Amino acid sequence: MRIELPHYPVSIPGFQFAGVTAGIKESGRPDLALVYADLPATAAAAFTTNVVQAAPVVVARQHARSGRLRAIVVNSGNANAFTGTTGLRAARTMCRLVARELGVPLQQVLPCSTGRIGVPLPMERIEAGIRSACRQLSPEGFHDALAAILTTDAFPKFAVRTLTLAGADITIAGMAKGAGMIAPRLAVVPHATLLAFLFTDAPLTPSALQQVLQRTLPRSFNAAVVDGDTSTNDTVVFLASGCAPMPPITTRSQTLPLFAAAAEDVMQELARLVVRDGEGATRVVDITVRGARTATEAQRAADAVARSPLCKAAFHGADPYMGRVVCALGYSGARFDPRRLRIYLDDLLVVDKGIELVREVEGQAEAVVRRPEFRLTIDLRAGSAEAFRICSDLTEEYVRFNSAYRT
Amino acid sequence: MRIELPHYPVSIPGFQFAGVTAGIKESGRPDLALVYADLPATAAAAFTTNVVQAAPVVVARQHARSGRLRAIVVNSGNANAFTGTTGLRAARTMCRLVARELGVPLQQVLPCSTGRIGVPLPMERIEAGIRSACRQLSPEGFHDALAAILTTDAFPKFAVRTLTLAGADITIAGMAKGAGMIAPRLAVVPHATLLAFLFTDAPLTPSALQQVLQRTLPRSFNAAVVDGDTSTNDTVVFLASGCAPMPPITTRSQTLPLFAAAAEDVMQELARLVVRDGEGATRVVDITVRGARTATEAQRAADAVARSPLCKAAFHGADPYMGRVVCALGYSGARFDPRRLRIYLDDLLVVDKGIELVREVEGQAEAVVRRPEFRLTIDLRAGSAEAFRICSDLTEEYVRFNSAYRT
Repeated sequence: MRIELPHYPVSIPGFQFAGVTAGIKESGRPDLALVYADLPATAAAAFTTNVVQAAPVVVARQHARSGRLRAIVVNSGNANAFTGTTGLRAARTMCRLVARELGVPLQQVLPCSTGRIGVPLPMERIEAGIRSACRQLSPEGFHDALAAILTTDAFPKFAVRTLTLAGADITIAGMAKGAGMIAPRLAVVPHATLLAFLFTDAPLTPSALQQVLQRTLPRSFNAAVVDGDTSTNDTVVFLASGCAPMPPITTRSQTLPLFAAAAEDVMQELARLVVRDGEGATRVVDITVRGARTATEAQRAADAVARSPLCKAAFHGADPYMGRVVCALGYSGARFDPRRLRIYLDDLLVVDKGIELVREVEGQAEAVVRRPEFRLTIDLRAGSAEAFRICSDLTEEYVRFNSAYRT
Repeated sequence: MRIELPHYPVSIPGFQFAGVTAGIKESGRPDLALVYADLPATAAAAFTTNVVQAAPVVVARQHARSGRLRAIVVNSGNANAFTGTTGLRAARTMCRLVARELGVPLQQVLPCSTGRIGVPLPMERIEAGIRSACRQLSPEGFHDALAAILTTDAFPKFAVRTLTLAGADITIAGMAKGAGMIAPRLAVVPHATLLAFLFTDAPLTPSALQQVLQRTLPRSFNAAVVDGDTSTNDTVVFLASGCAPMPPITTRSQTLPLFAAAAEDVMQELARLVVRDGEGATRVVDITVRGARTATEAQRAADAVARSPLCKAAFHGADPYMGRVVCALGYSGARFDPRRLRIYLDDLLVVDKGIELVREVEGQAEAVVRRPEFRLTIDLRAGSAEAFRICSDLTEEYVRFNSAYRT
């Protein structure tokens, strides 16, 4: 999906960034990113729930536990996943090099890797890259860092919101990478090879920031479905520098819901960009399932549709007929009475009373599904639970790309 | 996948067949099949577990309950699914017409439909087709009936075994249709728009035949994965005419395991033909997961790999690297220690001790995955449960076909 993104400078008080070419990628594109917090930043993180955890995820999980971080070091081009004890040592070495160069505690450096699975990291190049990145840190380096975390991405993904809270102007900014291996199963302290880094100058306590991440993931990164494959390396990190002149935001602050809403906005925009950039994607469909008996059943129903190759190929073909969607709901595991089921394309009712109505409104229905983005709303009418997914279509290009590329 | 099939006459003592063109399919190809048992046949059936059950499945489930059947009537080109009460009436009318023409009880006629979802059946054409089929019944009509049950199939699927049991020569023959919407979730009295009909002249009691179906489904039709979509219409029916001169096979007969083994052979051959004909498929991979903690976990692990778009695209691209497979196992829900995991391509060890070994044996590994059929064996080494899947690759042709075709 070709999209034009505005490119403008991004800076967040309290943070510096760098992105360099360490030579990990064969393409010679930037592949090592560094984020530095001038003072210890409040941190909340979520990692993949895959049983197979990349080495940097194992280390990052330990280092995130304290709720305080000084730096994030990221390499692209190599996932350092399924690399055994050598991989674990390599992830720790990345942290130690950063710690030494920047004079910060080792445990306050969070490592991330993304790229091919099962290949040892080229440590000499990583070391030289880290040294070079440390020298290039700058409050204006946001886009350099972002460029260095990309892999199969067709474009860089970032989003920024500013808001006024308790009289102070604060910024929430985020960067993300990810196009394939995207499916919603992040757990807080989360999931995809999705990497996303959020930054704010607002002061938040560790538990308040953790709560923000927990509340915002379900409708943002955990809602993003490209192929239904949950990666070994997915990491989302939120850092708060606290530079903004306002009282700290705690779990009891009235400002917390306002902050969380703005953060969700930034994160959902990033998640939508990830899906738009889904390998080969030409369409983005917002799927809402409501009226499910339980939250789990709502999620199963939404995932069944968002992951069904048949439904996704129909989205690609701009087919407004709902047979495949009804079929996917039927095997999802959600309990519902097909005769009560209602389905809407945008606001157009296309399934009701056990009958498909598309035939009568074919022209209107086709107008909806031909658009590059549309809403598919499914009301199971069996309860009150909801789930939300942002999904891409399945295209010949996805298959062409993924049969040629070796992860 | 282009394959050459032998074509030879098939007949099973006690059964007659017909296939006609009723005009349901726009293509003008045969679309109405009839099977007739000269005397009441012992019957066992398995239907889709989809919550959304096509009208003929609702009716067939009721009629199969008695364990005795005289006829099966099948239309292709229209699934009679998600068609409300009109659809239920239509399925019953199909049975009534057959019952009247052939002078058999209504409840001993089993209806099946396959094709597009959500479109009312053209009853006038169905009626004329049924009348014509009743006149054309013949012991030699097997291939005519088979031709009339096909939809998106590139070729007809049938398999025959003869064996000697208790001194009698008996035949087990089967026909099947299905190419897309194939995923393993049949429940006995089973799953895909897979339709499969098995016939034997051996005498079996209803409970013995039921047991045969229950034992043979896991390694045959329930192991077949094309796209992971479980249809609203899947039906497998096994009929035994009892014409062979031998004592009845009961649940306690020593001949039962022999019969079941031969039946599994026929059913696995049919299931493999369905996967070979998977829409756009160019490769068939036999996936065995062993050493799982529970049967459910073994199935989840096997399904995660068999359904992962990334793994399936890698199979298509003849990529021997196991990163995507390890990743899919990791998010499958199966519990295992990645450091104990072993993976084999045919008999070649490619993952061991948390490390991918493909790099060292790349030539041999590539020779395996370039073949049109190969084995992927995954040993989780966490328990003793097993699961088996026969899966196709994911190709550009699958997407092209399914974005143009409306189910």
